[in-house]
Amino acid sequence: MKSRAAVAFGPGQPLQIVEIDVEPPRAGEVLVKITHTGVCHTDAYTLSGDDPEGVFPAVLGHEGGGIVVQVGEGVTSVQPGDHVIPLYTAECKTCNFCLSGKTNLCQKIRATQGKGLMPDGTTRFSYQGQPIYHYMGTSTFSEYTVVAEISLAKINPEAPLEKVCLLGCGVTTGIGAVHNTAKVKEGDTVAVFGLGGIGLAVLQGAKQAKAGRIIAIDTNPSKFDLARSMGATDCINPKDEDKPIQDVIVELTDGGVDFSFECIGNVNVMRAALECCHKGWGESVIIGVAGAGQEISTRPFQLVTGRVWRGSAFGGVKGRTQLPSMVEDAMRGDIQLDPFITHTMPLERINEAFDLMHTGQSIRTVVHF
Amino acid sequence: MKSRAAVAFGPGQPLQIVEIDVEPPRAGEVLVKITHTGVCHTDAYTLSGDDPEGVFPAVLGHEGGGIVVQVGEGVTSVQPGDHVIPLYTAECKTCNFCLSGKTNLCQKIRATQGKGLMPDGTTRFSYQGQPIYHYMGTSTFSEYTVVAEISLAKINPEAPLEKVCLLGCGVTTGIGAVHNTAKVKEGDTVAVFGLGGIGLAVLQGAKQAKAGRIIAIDTNPSKFDLARSMGATDCINPKDEDKPIQDVIVELTDGGVDFSFECIGNVNVMRAALECCHKGWGESVIIGVAGAGQEISTRPFQLVTGRVWRGSAFGGVKGRTQLPSMVEDAMRGDIQLDPFITHTMPLERINEAFDLMHTGQSIRTVVHF
Repeated sequence: MKSRAAVAFGPGQPLQIVEIDVEPPRAGEVLVKITHTGVCHTDAYTLSGDDPEGVFPAVLGHEGGGIVVQVGEGVTSVQPGDHVIPLYTAECKTCNFCLSGKTNLCQKIRATQGKGLMPDGTTRFSYQGQPIYHYMGTSTFSEYTVVAEISLAKINPEAPLEKVCLLGCGVTTGIGAVHNTAKVKEGDTVAVFGLGGIGLAVLQGAKQAKAGRIIAIDTNPSKFDLARSMGATDCINPKDEDKPIQDVIVELTDGGVDFSFECIGNVNVMRAALECCHKGWGESVIIGVAGAGQEISTRPFQLVTGRVWRGSAFGGVKGRTQLPSMVEDAMRGDIQLDPFITHTMPLERINEAFDLMHTGQSIRTVVHF
Repeated sequence: MKSRAAVAFGPGQPLQIVEIDVEPPRAGEVLVKITHTGVCHTDAYTLSGDDPEGVFPAVLGHEGGGIVVQVGEGVTSVQPGDHVIPLYTAECKTCNFCLSGKTNLCQKIRATQGKGLMPDGTTRFSYQGQPIYHYMGTSTFSEYTVVAEISLAKINPEAPLEKVCLLGCGVTTGIGAVHNTAKVKEGDTVAVFGLGGIGLAVLQGAKQAKAGRIIAIDTNPSKFDLARSMGATDCINPKDEDKPIQDVIVELTDGGVDFSFECIGNVNVMRAALECCHKGWGESVIIGVAGAGQEISTRPFQLVTGRVWRGSAFGGVKGRTQLPSMVEDAMRGDIQLDPFITHTMPLERINEAFDLMHTGQSIRTVVHF
């Protein structure tokens, strides 16, 4: 079938809106009509050419919502008409990662997904007879996309897809990191580095967890009002300080925070986030994605004296198991999505969404088809 | 009173056996007659001059056992005749670290201890009228030493001090890191880097925890027989391999280990120890003490994909609360101390103990007075 799509033909080039061909779903696959998709920094990272796993031409996009159109052989968990959120972290429920009870990082289709291919090693997309690669197992920048059955969370059909699509990445990543990875408890002190979509979601998660003090750190103070409205009790601009930000926070909190979250992808900030943690028990969670080849470092004494360094991917959330209830949370207002959506626009203007993001003018742009 | 002691008069110099003057214990302090002391790498590190906290002249030693001789004003938890193990990690039971339930790193006397002073900011040792500094709050290289009451674990008087003195540092550090810091469970896969006293103690802890596979790594294969006798199921010499040791271990274990322990103090090995952990859940514990100013590093992707980087000091053990029962374990044979004690000698020959350690000939030398 034909599908309108924003195709990344090469690194650093604007996306091109073209009509691509989409093959029907094969065994274990599902054809989904995407109604809405967010545009995330990870899409921009891959489009820039810096992502070592990036392949072109490809249909990017990984933060979408849509409706099942057709299912392939053997698919039983969804049927046409179901509302779904595509998952870039699949959940097969059978691999040793899924069965471990310790991680959400299902590895069932990881290898092919990382190469831009469906689990059978081929693509369902083509343009003028040439294959187009998939992306993160989701490719939500196409009106019709094919994803593995295990990469779909079936959600309440009453949920507004134009909002809950954001649970496909950023908001879930931030909130999940607070609850699943850090396990913040009532009264804990929290520091959040970076007030983009993920950082704001971390604030919201920390507020849900009833953290006692929530310190937001960003070099752009225009974000502080929104941060306060989403739970921040203190806002700090490192540019206003004459000493390292970790020292500022340790002083402010009489020894450091219980938990910190790096939501930028800057390896120097990752170090500061670790070192602002309380001696003896403070834990730092890396959420941001650093540039290829960049490394984190610290003195090992930081860990020997009790700090813990962790990371989180998709907020530690098992998509098929946990995402449906997060959608319910959003419908009840226990997760607020409206503050994240600063812009909406049709697919044809998707390159503007990247510009808004690069210039710091948007939190999230939701694109509709 | 007079006391025979091995005094470090300056960095890099052999210890000198002299008769020093020891003042009586002040309020909250205890005079202990040390009967036995181990010689540990940390003593050598400080003696070398590389320890930024090292001060001279000082009475080193922190792995001792002895008998209470006299107590200062207000001391209630021990009395003359009690058998004790001095603790370089105090346990006051009142500071916010002790009360947190999350760490053993009592901070009550940390500041003065780090400067080689008793909690009131003075020393009890002198030689020819000149003050001699304390060390780690213990100074077990003196026949008579003064320590804070909160730095003493009162133990079963039937316990053999010539053996259980080793619970004052290395053995407790290794075994404790397995149980308190990593929390190794039955069936877990474990990698232990470095087969000195701490590494061997980690092996023993892992065996106690019924780890399924225990991989010992050392560049000196002469240690492998002992390692096997203490629980290692696999022994690897990185020099025999033609790829990085982390890759060897990931391959050997079909994805990596559940827990790894760095027991050397080498920042490159710390990185390997992290990177040999299983994606999704593997945790690495740094126990070794790195040289001043050295840093650990890795790609943040290692953490984002689920590995956890921790550290452990004194095995996470609260000395006054937990050490007495570890002494009982040793008396019952549930902790084996004999294999650690490769040499014994009188105080007068203590410099030989350092030579044996530097040349890799000893695990522990126990010095008696």
